[in-house]
Amino acid sequence: MSKREGTRTGRRPGESGTRDAIADAARRRFAEVGYERATIRAIAGDAAVDPALVLHFFGSKQELFASVMALPFEPEKIMEEILAGPRSQIGLRVARFAVTTLEQPDAQRVLTGILRAAASEPEAARVVRERLAEQIIGAITEGLGVPDARLRASLVSSQTVGLVMARYIIRVEPLASLDAEMLIAALGPNLQRYLTGSLD
Amino acid sequence: MSKREGTRTGRRPGESGTRDAIADAARRRFAEVGYERATIRAIAGDAAVDPALVLHFFGSKQELFASVMALPFEPEKIMEEILAGPRSQIGLRVARFAVTTLEQPDAQRVLTGILRAAASEPEAARVVRERLAEQIIGAITEGLGVPDARLRASLVSSQTVGLVMARYIIRVEPLASLDAEMLIAALGPNLQRYLTGSLD
Repeated sequence: MSKREGTRTGRRPGESGTRDAIADAARRRFAEVGYERATIRAIAGDAAVDPALVLHFFGSKQELFASVMALPFEPEKIMEEILAGPRSQIGLRVARFAVTTLEQPDAQRVLTGILRAAASEPEAARVVRERLAEQIIGAITEGLGVPDARLRASLVSSQTVGLVMARYIIRVEPLASLDAEMLIAALGPNLQRYLTGSLD
Repeated sequence: MSKREGTRTGRRPGESGTRDAIADAARRRFAEVGYERATIRAIAGDAAVDPALVLHFFGSKQELFASVMALPFEPEKIMEEILAGPRSQIGLRVARFAVTTLEQPDAQRVLTGILRAAASEPEAARVVRERLAEQIIGAITEGLGVPDARLRASLVSSQTVGLVMARYIIRVEPLASLDAEMLIAALGPNLQRYLTGSLD
């Protein structure tokens, strides 16, 4: 979002508020009804603006989705912090970051919304793969700096995506109500192996 | 499906074919458009039958979903086979079963369809949690026979559900095109820890 905002200069007062209202409406619609059924018309209605204004601000439905479904954290900044500690405990730090982020209601809503959309529509899956997954996997890959870092990062993504699905979307018990600290302890060593262990 | 079929005796010839046609149509619709948009009317149309006949055979949309989205394997039977080998290699055998099953196009279509539906509609998520996840987690829990077996089984589910999402639905690379044997080797020790290792 910041990139787009950065290119908009000299806008009228109130424009930013309208844009935010559209983004909020879109975020709710995408999370609640999925990508395809979240129409530009319905999002415009929720934000009480003309549908043309949605397209004026965001260009297309796909751009709107990619923009409002931005990750609720900055992968490169997070990886910097995670890499600052001992490499032997990196799995635990990734687990702690993932679980504490997901336990925050706003971040949880965005992240479950991203996966709901990706699961329901191939077009949304492509946006998630090319933009959001790529940001996270790119940051982990660069941070690890080993030849098979990208494979390791994609294995980490399989565990964290599965955590979101099983704990927060399908709500499989007892995982769904497991204490956050116990969950971090359970996940940590498995993420550690994906990040630094032998994979064969 | 077999349980329901077993209770139907003395049915007319042709009834089974009609029921199968409805089930096939429902399976395709649920997988392609998700739970909510797969209407009884649309499914009946695909199967060229009256919507009332869909309800005659399956009772309700929820029953229809639970019936056609049956797991493409029998969890108790599979766990029996998996438990027959050495406990120290059980993670590798679970990984091998999961990956080889998911590499079969029919099973992959059913399993991705189940997760697509669960992600898109809370009602479908409930059916998946209460029936399908329960079957798998119940079989693993009983098979393991340790006090925290259910937690271990739900952790295994988080990794396997995440595998389906990341490799087959979002298609994150290089995981999406990773050789099956390499994938089994990568997953095995992590599933082993969830099943038999220390979780804290």
